[in-house]
Amino acid sequence: MPSTNGTNAVQKSSSWGAIPTSDVARRTFNPIRDILTRPVRPLASPKSSKDLLSLSIGDPTVFGNFKAHPVVAEAVEEAAASYRFNGYPPSVGLAHVREAIANKYTHPDAPLTANDVVMTSGCSGAVEMAISVLCGAGKNILLPRPGFCLYNTIAGSQNVEARLYNLVAEKNWEADIEHMESLIDENTGAILINNPSNPCGSNYTKAHLRAILAVCERHRVPLISDEIYADMVFSGQTFTSTAWLTATVPILTLGGLAKQWLVPGWRIGWILIHDRANAFEHVRQGLVALSTIINGPCALVQAAIPKIFAKVPDTYLPELNRQLESNARILETEINNIPGLNVITPQGAMYVMVKIDLAAFAGITSDADFCHKLKWEESVEILPGECFSYPGTVRLVITPPHDILRAASARIAAFCQRHRK
Amino acid sequence: MPSTNGTNAVQKSSSWGAIPTSDVARRTFNPIRDILTRPVRPLASPKSSKDLLSLSIGDPTVFGNFKAHPVVAEAVEEAAASYRFNGYPPSVGLAHVREAIANKYTHPDAPLTANDVVMTSGCSGAVEMAISVLCGAGKNILLPRPGFCLYNTIAGSQNVEARLYNLVAEKNWEADIEHMESLIDENTGAILINNPSNPCGSNYTKAHLRAILAVCERHRVPLISDEIYADMVFSGQTFTSTAWLTATVPILTLGGLAKQWLVPGWRIGWILIHDRANAFEHVRQGLVALSTIINGPCALVQAAIPKIFAKVPDTYLPELNRQLESNARILETEINNIPGLNVITPQGAMYVMVKIDLAAFAGITSDADFCHKLKWEESVEILPGECFSYPGTVRLVITPPHDILRAASARIAAFCQRHRK
Ligand SMILES: Cc1ncc(COP(=O)(O)O)c(C=O)c1O
Ligand SMILES: Cc1ncc(COP(=O)(O)O)c(C=O)c1O
Repeated sequence: MPSTNGTNAVQKSSSWGAIPTSDVARRTFNPIRDILTRPVRPLASPKSSKDLLSLSIGDPTVFGNFKAHPVVAEAVEEAAASYRFNGYPPSVGLAHVREAIANKYTHPDAPLTANDVVMTSGCSGAVEMAISVLCGAGKNILLPRPGFCLYNTIAGSQNVEARLYNLVAEKNWEADIEHMESLIDENTGAILINNPSNPCGSNYTKAHLRAILAVCERHRVPLISDEIYADMVFSGQTFTSTAWLTATVPILTLGGLAKQWLVPGWRIGWILIHDRANAFEHVRQGLVALSTIINGPCALVQAAIPKIFAKVPDTYLPELNRQLESNARILETEINNIPGLNVITPQGAMYVMVKIDLAAFAGITSDADFCHKLKWEESVEILPGECFSYPGTVRLVITPPHDILRAASARIAAFCQRHRK
Repeated sequence: MPSTNGTNAVQKSSSWGAIPTSDVARRTFNPIRDILTRPVRPLASPKSSKDLLSLSIGDPTVFGNFKAHPVVAEAVEEAAASYRFNGYPPSVGLAHVREAIANKYTHPDAPLTANDVVMTSGCSGAVEMAISVLCGAGKNILLPRPGFCLYNTIAGSQNVEARLYNLVAEKNWEADIEHMESLIDENTGAILINNPSNPCGSNYTKAHLRAILAVCERHRVPLISDEIYADMVFSGQTFTSTAWLTATVPILTLGGLAKQWLVPGWRIGWILIHDRANAFEHVRQGLVALSTIINGPCALVQAAIPKIFAKVPDTYLPELNRQLESNARILETEINNIPGLNVITPQGAMYVMVKIDLAAFAGITSDADFCHKLKWEESVEILPGECFSYPGTVRLVITPPHDILRAASARIAAFCQRHRK
């Protein structure tokens, strides 16, 4: 790559010019990471000197109120002390760990064995591998709008066309089935759903999941079901894993330790292969092949999983869900008291989506503008719906402690008051 | 994707037909993982009933003779017990850990700060990101022959053309500089070298590294220097990191915990960005972007690194190298006693390459055939040079205990004896 810059050529140390990065790196864009690492653009209004209150990242561990169960840490300490998991694991994961995962997630209507489990670097790694194995350059994938932005990042990175199907806020964020169906063509590699949902906090009914499965069935398109928030639902709700509802549609169900076990930093995820129509033989081989590139996640943490599943008491999850729900209700009440903002009641996961009536505010041009000014003037960080391809809303995480949720709500209220028309 | 198989359409459960996997999954082929997971094809000759002796995978931990220093496990146990590393790390790695890595690898002639470090899922993850950021579909990369097969796997997966430059066994596996240079064109994204080398066990002189850097300089092609075996050299040898020898050539130096600290299963690697010609601004951004896809390796193990670097005593590495060398010498002596086999003396790392004089044996058609029959008849597993794009040789790992090295050598001797012309 000769230097294209003639003047630089004189000075030896800069005569290399700028080496371009690859197309793939340029196509890989994560809007959340981008917003959170970029400095706030200065505004004319006075800058808040208060401590930053962050309701932006879906990391429940930052405030200390949500803490992993002691068994979880003990299980890793034991694995480290045993010296038995220092060597390379099989690239798809340790056999006894895959078996423990299969045993936990098997269901009479959707049986699983160790062979149906591929371990990945976080659920992010599962998303990457699932899209990679089913799609690839030139294919398209159907993604939810609003939806977790990593899906778009990964599709973009792999040159897979993202086609966004609408979720309907008024119908508890159900997919617009007609719209979904209209996006399918012969290059559609997969439909991806996320249930319970980030950012929506929705939890689908069996009937709605069946309607989505029927679309897959009609068009013979396999499903990716991101269930990283599996079992994390509020009172009155029941979680249904999509795979339980079909004997035919081939499904890759994605999961991981991050959310339910409160260890997102441990980077453990998995793909569960549901293939009762025997359509995934090549896909299985493809997953094995892809797993050989980075050789799976940390073996120590893999090895902790059987103990985590066996020894974290049954009371843990209901208590976690109860706390999450109580947080969600506080935030919902506080935010709904602010004219111009409207919470769409969540049913699970760790987020609430809030509609902003932009017409109620003076000089706020968009959800991104709202978040930007809020951060500058009130030192509260939340994410614009734009990050989830859904302008006109903002997403708040519900995991901070009650006092922080209240303080953040009060600052948002003051901000809205100040900018009201 | 409608079923293409008319007869299947009758039976609902198989009416899906076989869903094809993506091009990228099909292009992702790891010959080592393939050989090691495939059952041995039955032969006419009697099958050995002896225990399998595996000298195939570069995993020093399997026999228990090479064991991580106690500090290494303690450091992870501490990180787990602290509850401070359960949350998401920054996608490029924890800041204080990147600083510890920078401090360990900084050099007066190649200074590093935390900003120059990107943490990855094993050194494999570093190879993947380095190739991805500098190359991408349609580009080419220069790789060593013989060389670690993951390079080819990853290039293939990314649709990057692998151009193999020759290493010259007689010249201690130095690169054929003329050949290397002849492969460069305007689509060359990077030259990759691996020093000390898997599979060669070579350790390059400063003069040779300078010759390679001169090629990069002349053609303005950046270098990827895989130094996962950094500092692992035998008596009389000095390891030189390539970056120390240039003030201009932009280099991505790859490393990790796997080999020197004997924890390959922990999946921790890193990229060190050496950019004294200021050519890597876009490449840095690209690495950050790529890191957001799976969000870095396990935060617990990341957090163990500062303590590992600070507290593993200085006597540890020389002792490790002494043991490795003693193993290498045993294997070399034993194998060189077998007519038709010839060890190329290694200077570091964990492998020996052995030339096979195929003309000396009856009915052995290739190195792959040699390995296949050896496994069937003697239950000894070694890898054919074919895996490293270098037929006519086999690779043995030197890490098993002395008795296993001797037992394996005796079986190889018996096998060669039996098949001698
Ligand atoms: C819907 C969804 N899928 C996947 C992930 C990634 O999970 P992990 O942290 O295990 O990579 C997240 C994380 O926020 C998520 O919200
Ligand atoms: C030359 C070389 N580079 C990279 C790697 C990958 O290292 P890791 O296990 O940290 O992914 C290996 C592993 O054998 C290797 O030999």
